[in-house]
Amino acid sequence: MQGHDFYEKKKVLITGGLGFLGSNLAIRLVDLGASVTLYDGLIPDLGGNFFNIEPIKEKVRPVTANIGDRSTMDQHVRNQDIIFNIGMHSCHLDSMENPVFDIQTNVVPQINFLESLRHHNPRSRVVYVGTRAQYGRVENPPITETTPLNPMDIYAASKQAVEWYHMLYGKICGLRPTSLRLGNTYGPRHQMRHAKYGVQNYLIRLALDGQQIQVFGDGSQKREMIYVDDITECLLLLGENDQCIGEVYAIGTTERVTFLELVQEIIRACDSGSYTHAPWPEDRKQIEVGDVVTDYGKLSAHTGWSPSIPLSQGLKITADYYRRNKEHYW
Amino acid sequence: MQGHDFYEKKKVLITGGLGFLGSNLAIRLVDLGASVTLYDGLIPDLGGNFFNIEPIKEKVRPVTANIGDRSTMDQHVRNQDIIFNIGMHSCHLDSMENPVFDIQTNVVPQINFLESLRHHNPRSRVVYVGTRAQYGRVENPPITETTPLNPMDIYAASKQAVEWYHMLYGKICGLRPTSLRLGNTYGPRHQMRHAKYGVQNYLIRLALDGQQIQVFGDGSQKREMIYVDDITECLLLLGENDQCIGEVYAIGTTERVTFLELVQEIIRACDSGSYTHAPWPEDRKQIEVGDVVTDYGKLSAHTGWSPSIPLSQGLKITADYYRRNKEHYW
Repeated sequence: MQGHDFYEKKKVLITGGLGFLGSNLAIRLVDLGASVTLYDGLIPDLGGNFFNIEPIKEKVRPVTANIGDRSTMDQHVRNQDIIFNIGMHSCHLDSMENPVFDIQTNVVPQINFLESLRHHNPRSRVVYVGTRAQYGRVENPPITETTPLNPMDIYAASKQAVEWYHMLYGKICGLRPTSLRLGNTYGPRHQMRHAKYGVQNYLIRLALDGQQIQVFGDGSQKREMIYVDDITECLLLLGENDQCIGEVYAIGTTERVTFLELVQEIIRACDSGSYTHAPWPEDRKQIEVGDVVTDYGKLSAHTGWSPSIPLSQGLKITADYYRRNKEHYW
Repeated sequence: MQGHDFYEKKKVLITGGLGFLGSNLAIRLVDLGASVTLYDGLIPDLGGNFFNIEPIKEKVRPVTANIGDRSTMDQHVRNQDIIFNIGMHSCHLDSMENPVFDIQTNVVPQINFLESLRHHNPRSRVVYVGTRAQYGRVENPPITETTPLNPMDIYAASKQAVEWYHMLYGKICGLRPTSLRLGNTYGPRHQMRHAKYGVQNYLIRLALDGQQIQVFGDGSQKREMIYVDDITECLLLLGENDQCIGEVYAIGTTERVTFLELVQEIIRACDSGSYTHAPWPEDRKQIEVGDVVTDYGKLSAHTGWSPSIPLSQGLKITADYYRRNKEHYW
C-alpha cells in the first residue's frame, strides 16, 4: 500500500458514510489525518450503522440526512477537497419489486446532490461508486471498461444513468468525477440482517450461526470476491490521482472462485455451517449475471492498484469480526 | 405503405398525443379505424397543441394530465391494445441547464407510467420513442443498435435509462416493449415557438419569416432528416409486429445532407430567408454530436420499413402547412 500523504489534512465528505464501504474508508482516512464528514440517510434495510464507526466516533462528523436534502447537503459539500459518493441502495431484487423506491433512492437524490455540488463546490473531486451490474450478463469476457452496457435490473440501469450524470456535470459545472464499477465485496461492517444485497456477506452469518447455505443450481458460476480493505485502497488511489478524472474503471481479482467454492471457503473460515444445492428461485434467476471475469488492467495502469488480500485470509478476518461483534449486526 | 389492417378497431393510447409525433400518428390511426386516446401533460414549452388534432378532434379522446399522475393514468391504460409512449421533453440544452427538470419530466413520470401499466395492463404492447442521442458522438459510423452508448447530455442519459426501464418491465410484469431511437425529424405539427429542440423545424420558421439563419461553423456535419409521415409509418409497423417485442431500433435515411445543405434546401422550399456562418456557441458545441450516419438494416429486415419522402418534397409540404397555419404555431 502507498503512503497516501495526499489525504493528510484534506477535507473529505463520504456519502453513505455509516455504511459498509463508507465506514471502512473513513477509518482509513482518519488514520491518514484527513478531516472526515460522514453523511448518511440511514434508510431502513440499508447498511448505515453507528457501530461501524465506533473506533473513530470522536474523530469524525456524522450527519444524518437524506442525500437529496439540499437544505442540509448544500452546507456540507462546501469546502470539501474530495467527496466519495457511496450512499445508495444496492438491492437488485428490491429494485425490481419496487422500481419507484429505486428511482426515489438512487436517482432523484443523486441529481439533487449533484446540484448541491454545482452550486456550492462545482469543481470538486468526486469518486462515484458504480456497479459491475451495469454490464449485466457479459457475452465476451473478460469485462473491461468498454464492455457493452447491459443492465439486467432497474438498480443497474439507474446506477449507469447516475454515472453518466456525474460525468456530464463535468460539462455543466467543471465537476471532476471518477467512477469505480464495483463487483462483489466482503468484509467487516457490512449489513448482516438480510440477504437482499451483499449476499456473500450474509452467507458468513449463516455459516457462523451453524446454518445450512443454499447453493442455487450447481454453483459453478465464477465470482470475484474483493476484500473491503482492497476497495478502500482503490478508492484512495482514485481520489488522489488526477489522471482518473472523467474516467470509469472496472475492478476485479486474480483469484477467482466458483460460487460453490466460495461457500466451501466460507464454511472453512467460520469453522461451522453446511451447504445444500437448491433450484434457482425465479426472481434471482432473472437477474443472475453468470460468470464474472474482469480485466482491471486500466485501473492498474492508472493507479498501480492490485488486490492484496487472499480470499481465505479475508474471510478469516471477516468471520472473526462478526463473531466478536454479533450483537451489532445480527 | 402497408395496409395496417391490424389497427382497425384497436384501442390505442398515445402519450404526448397532442405533440408533433403523437398528433401525426393519431391522425393516421383514426384513418385506420383505431379508437384513440391522446394523453398529454401540456407542459409549457413542449409541443402539445390542440390545433394539432383539429382534423380529428371529434374522433379522439384527449386527456390532459401528467403522465406520472397515477390517479389519472391508471384509468386510461386499462384495456388499451397498444400504447405509443412519446410524451417526454426533448430539449438537450434545458437538460443541461436544469437537470432536475429533466429527471422530473422524463424519468420520474415514466416510472410511474410503467407502474400504471404493471398494475392495470401488465402485458401491453408499448412502443417507446427513444433518441439517437443515446449514442452521442459516434467514433465508428454508421450507427447501428450495437453502437456503444455515449450520451452527451442529461436528456440522452435519461432517455437511455428509461429505455432500459421499459425493457426490464418485460421481466417485472411481462410488458412487451419496443424502442425506436429516433433522430432528426421534421414536418407539420412541430412546436415552432423556440429553437430549443427540433431546431431544423425552427429554421423553417425563420426562412418563412424571411430571416437570416445562422450556420454554426462551416455546417459540414452530416444530418439525416426524416419526414414525420415516415416516422408514423415506422411506429405503426413496430406496434403491429411481434418480432419487434423486446427490441430496439436505429432509424435513418438514405438521403444525407450537410447542415449547410439542409439550410439551403429549407430556404429553397420556403422561397424566402437567407443564411450566414457564425461561430459555435459554447453550450451547443459541448453537446454537438458530429456526423450522423445510420444503418437501419435491422429495422428494414424486421418491418420492411424504408423512408419514402425525399427531403425537398417533405420540406415543401411542411413549409406550406406552416404558411397556412402560422397563427397556431408562431
